[in-house]
Order: sequence, then C-alpha cells, then structure tokens
Amino acid sequence: MENYDSHHCSRQDLQDFLTHVLSAAGCDAPSAAAVTRAVVDASARAYDTHGVRLIPWYLQCLEGGRINRSPRIDISRKAPAIVHVDADNGFGHLASYRAIDALCEVADQQGVAVATVGRSSHHGATGCYTVEAARRGFAALGMTHADAVVVPHDGITPFFGTNPISFAVPLEGEEPLVLDMATSSIPLNRVMLRRSTGAPLPPDVAVDGEGRVTTDAHHAAALLPVGGENFGYKGVGLAGMVDIFCSAFTGMQHGAKFPCFNGPDFSRPIEIGHFFIVMQPALFQAMAAFNASVSALVGDLRRQRAKPGKAVHAPSDLEKAEAGRRAREGIPLDPLTWRAFQLLGQRYGCPLEQHVAA
Amino acid sequence: MENYDSHHCSRQDLQDFLTHVLSAAGCDAPSAAAVTRAVVDASARAYDTHGVRLIPWYLQCLEGGRINRSPRIDISRKAPAIVHVDADNGFGHLASYRAIDALCEVADQQGVAVATVGRSSHHGATGCYTVEAARRGFAALGMTHADAVVVPHDGITPFFGTNPISFAVPLEGEEPLVLDMATSSIPLNRVMLRRSTGAPLPPDVAVDGEGRVTTDAHHAAALLPVGGENFGYKGVGLAGMVDIFCSAFTGMQHGAKFPCFNGPDFSRPIEIGHFFIVMQPALFQAMAAFNASVSALVGDLRRQRAKPGKAVHAPSDLEKAEAGRRAREGIPLDPLTWRAFQLLGQRYGCPLEQHVAA
Repeated sequence: MENYDSHHCSRQDLQDFLTHVLSAAGCDAPSAAAVTRAVVDASARAYDTHGVRLIPWYLQCLEGGRINRSPRIDISRKAPAIVHVDADNGFGHLASYRAIDALCEVADQQGVAVATVGRSSHHGATGCYTVEAARRGFAALGMTHADAVVVPHDGITPFFGTNPISFAVPLEGEEPLVLDMATSSIPLNRVMLRRSTGAPLPPDVAVDGEGRVTTDAHHAAALLPVGGENFGYKGVGLAGMVDIFCSAFTGMQHGAKFPCFNGPDFSRPIEIGHFFIVMQPALFQAMAAFNASVSALVGDLRRQRAKPGKAVHAPSDLEKAEAGRRAREGIPLDPLTWRAFQLLGQRYGCPLEQHVAA
Repeated sequence: MENYDSHHCSRQDLQDFLTHVLSAAGCDAPSAAAVTRAVVDASARAYDTHGVRLIPWYLQCLEGGRINRSPRIDISRKAPAIVHVDADNGFGHLASYRAIDALCEVADQQGVAVATVGRSSHHGATGCYTVEAARRGFAALGMTHADAVVVPHDGITPFFGTNPISFAVPLEGEEPLVLDMATSSIPLNRVMLRRSTGAPLPPDVAVDGEGRVTTDAHHAAALLPVGGENFGYKGVGLAGMVDIFCSAFTGMQHGAKFPCFNGPDFSRPIEIGHFFIVMQPALFQAMAAFNASVSALVGDLRRQRAKPGKAVHAPSDLEKAEAGRRAREGIPLDPLTWRAFQLLGQRYGCPLEQHVAA
C-alpha cells in the first residue's frame, strides 16, 4: 500500500457526502446507495485502489453519458441454479449487489448458484460482493473483466484486463476471509503513481512498448500477468478464464474489445460482464464442522514460522488490521481525492469535514 | 517441458499394458480402468509430470495398503445442485471420473453443480476431469489439495500443497481449452530432476531451509508460490482457496495435516479432497453464441503480436500441438519410467513394446 495519511474522514461522513454528491449528479437513489456502499466498504477495508478515490472518475462516466442514471435492473432465472442480471448500463455496483441478493436466496435452496451480470459497468472492488455474501454465511467467488492493459505471455500488446478473482468465506468470530486479487502483479494506477513519485517499479511486473521488462514507470506501456516473464502463462491463464466467464457466459464481448475505461470517450456504455458463484456451506457440511475446519486452516497458517522481521498472514489479515485502525481513526484520503471532494462539496453544497479522533 | 524422447509407445499399447499391470497388482476393474484412462490421457495431452510416470508410485501406494483396491464409491445428493462422492480410500481417478459423470447430469438440469470428493487419494492431473466434462460440452473448474511443499508468503516452512486449479471449456472444432496450473511456479519433481541434471532452477521459484530464495536445486527445501518473493501472496491466496474448497467443503483435513505423499509410510489412507464445479453453457447462452464468443476470444488472442522468436498461445495450445505429434509418433517415456515398465512387464508377464512410427 502507498501511504496516504494526509486527511481522514469518518465512515458516516463519507457515506452521507457521497450519497448526496451522487444524487445531486443525477443518480437515482438505489444507484447512489449502491455505489456509496461499495466504495466506502472498500476504503473501510483498506482496498484503497478501489475505494472512494474512484468517485471523480465515476462522476465523469455519469456526466459523459456512459452510465445510465436510473437503470431498470432485470433479474431472470435461466435455470434452477442460474440467475442473469441485466444491469441496463447502470453502475455495476447496484447490479452486483442485486446479483448477490438473488444468489444467496437460490444457493439456500440449491446449494450453489451462479449469476451472470451483463450490460454492466465498472463495479469497484469485486471483493465487495463476495464479502457481502460471506457476511451472510455464504462462500462466494467473483470475477470481472476489464479493458486491455495486460500483455499475454510472450506478447507485446495488451490483451487482458487486470481481471480480478475474489473468494470470500465466513470465518467464525471475525470478518470473512477475503481474497481479492488482480491477475496482474500490480494495477495500472500503481504505474501512474510511480510516474509522479519517480520511484522505480518492482522487477518483473511491467513491460515497455516492445514487450521488454522494465522497472522505469515512464517506459512502462503495459502490465505483466502475475508470474512475470517466466511464469506469466499462469496469470494470463487465469485472466483468460475470467474473461471467458465474463463474456461467453454473460453474452458480453471479451475485454480486448472494450474501449479504454479512462476515455477519451465517456459517452457510450461499455457493457461489461461480471460472474459470481455463491455456495451455502451448511448444505455441504454441518456448520460447526465447516467453521472449525476453516478456522483450523487459518489458525495453523497464522502460526507458521516467518522470515526475520516478517509474519505469515492469511488473505485479508493485513487489511483487517488496517480496517480496525480506520474504524477508530477515520478513513484516509489521498491528497488528490481530498481536493476533488472539497470541490464537489462546494459544487453541491455539502462540505466534507475531516475526522477528529476521539 | 524437459525432453524425454528416448522411448515411445503407442497409446493403445500403454493402455493395455497399464490395465494389465494394475489388475495384476490387485486393482478391481473399474479402478484399473480409471487410473489407466487418466494417466494415458495426461501423457497423450503432454502433461508428463502427471502422466504414466506416476504408475510406479501408484503401485507403491497400492502395495503398501494406502489405496483400497476395491473401493465402494458412494455418491449422494446433498442438495439439488450438490453431489458428494465418497472415494472409500480408492484411487482418486475413479472417484473423480464418477464425480464428473454425476455433475454433467445434474448441471444439465440445474445449470451448475458442485461435487465434493472425500476420503480420496492422488488423482493425477486435475485437468483430466475438467477436460472430460468439456469434451461432453460442459465448462468445468477442478481443484485438489496436497501435502505441504509450498511456503506461505514470507514463511519458512512448507504449508500448502501445489494445489492446482483447472478450468476447461469446449472450443468449437478442436479439443477443449484447458488451463491446468499448480499454484506454485514449478512442481517439486522439477527440483528433484534438476538435482540429478545439475541445471540451476529458474529465479524466484524455490527457497532454502531458512526461506531464502535459491536457484541451487540442492539447497532448495521448498517451493515459492506463483508470484515469487514479491507477489507470492497471490499464489498462496489461490492455494488457500483451493485448500478450503477441498477440506472444509469436503469434510477432509487441510493439506498441511497430511503425511508426505512420497512416504515413508505407504500403509495408511491419506483421505484427501477434490472439488469440482460443472456448468451447462447451453443454459446460459444459445450454444452458437457461446461457441462464437469463446472462439473469438481464443482467435483474437492467438493473433496477438509476439516478442521476436515467440508466439502468443491460448492455454493448452502448446500441449495440443504436442498431443498431435504424439498421436502419430507415440507417447515418449522418460528413461526411468521406461526401465520401471520393463521390470513390471517381466513381473506380470506383459512386455511393453516400443512404438514403430508408420
């Protein structure tokens, strides 16, 4: 994580502020609530790349016409255990929460259920939806595809999005265990950030315009898949799987067909797909046994011997520790986002205050 | 792939030979057929690490008593879309093929179905079962856990198995697209092989007994997850997900609790779990549209510009090309396996001949 501790806001203030701003910008109430819920949840859980910092970009998409402000979400049951959600080109957050609502109901009967989401848009952190299912006692897998920024193995031109995979499962006595990982090693906005700070990139994560590995953020033209130059066929194998689930199964095009999410065109819908699988653990094992099994694995993992000065963590452990700190001290905003929110506050008459620690 | 072109056998000869050997060693007919089918399929598709070379080890497991020679496979329906397969400590191959048979039937009705397999053993290449589903027109995800050989991120002691993830989907006009990847960068037997050849390991794939990265096969004590020293939290995140699906959902223990698969104890069952998800694409989209979508993605990917002297491939493209060669020229056996098979032929009165190219 980069360090962005210049300004802090309370969760409640951010929620009120963002709901107000999104509504004032023309979003209907369900959309404003869903976007706010997702980005504040991501920021509260310390997934900053997909948190409240996305709001200025979302407003650009909304104002440009890419996003439908008042979508009519349509949910259909294609088979006993398949749900399709048509997002009507609204915010992907609303369609994704609706998908999870429907999936939990169906998985309660069937044991497992799949949702395809079509005609959707960026939905923030995929983990927002899997963790929501896990908070209700379900296990969930989530995926989304995106515009091309990752080169295929041995390739030169970006073809895959950062195509994340998220997995969440209930963990007794604490917040769910969440895995929420891009199938590239780093996100593209890490490259952008390093261009402004001048810091070098880690080795084996980005390539120049000829497909050669570079640590110079200014020369980086695309990302390598996780696994890097030698084993990137694994990362792009996963990225390709995500793309197939989010295109062939949802009825949308594959990611390389999308225009760049960052514009210049913000006027036309992009129509991306998401893919979710939700399972009811209680239909697999007695819940006490299931919980004991997950806890045993996580507990044993956390007790593993670590390298000097390090510790062994389960997925999302570091974010949970940071989430605890944020619940007390407020959610940090990076300087760019803080400035953008101040301007939005002036524009829409809803000033955002800094959090004062108790 | 390492190069093992010393001896070749025809697929049919290998099938006949292995069925005979396994039966002579005491396997019942369904078990002998399933093991033979899986390892010959893996070798024919050029997944040599999980092909016929496993047979001497399987016989060791069988003779030691770890494996039940005449398992009574029990299949139960835990919920409309959940199947549980009790492998009765027999070969994992038989239970896994049975799981796929049951899943295809259930997915045809429900759209998606999950199988947990419990009280099982090593099942060879997980891709054998996902590709079988895909050959019948289904999409499939498969996972299995294994004994601890991979260190957690920042850890010193192995905790996860190489815990593979396999995905397969039908591809019109050719064999299915198959992803079949360990969540470590390399398998442990690559380290063993490099110890005997003296060749160095790739960077960032293995660690010594103190968790320090090493390229010296003789110092390598454990594997790093895919992503290596910097981004291995992604590889172990996936390995942990696989372990949870294969333990908490199947009722088995997690992988770090297993004794070493390579002995010294071959007398007691290990009771591992596998996890499969099968989907019927025709219940998601019209089959023509689904096929066109997968073909468009794969075709566009194959046409991507590559680095000098390289080409961009879809998952399993290289193995398919090699499979074509093997169908004509026979399946290559490494020298150790060839020698072991000659001895088995003598012992059980069924000599294995070399393939003579037409």
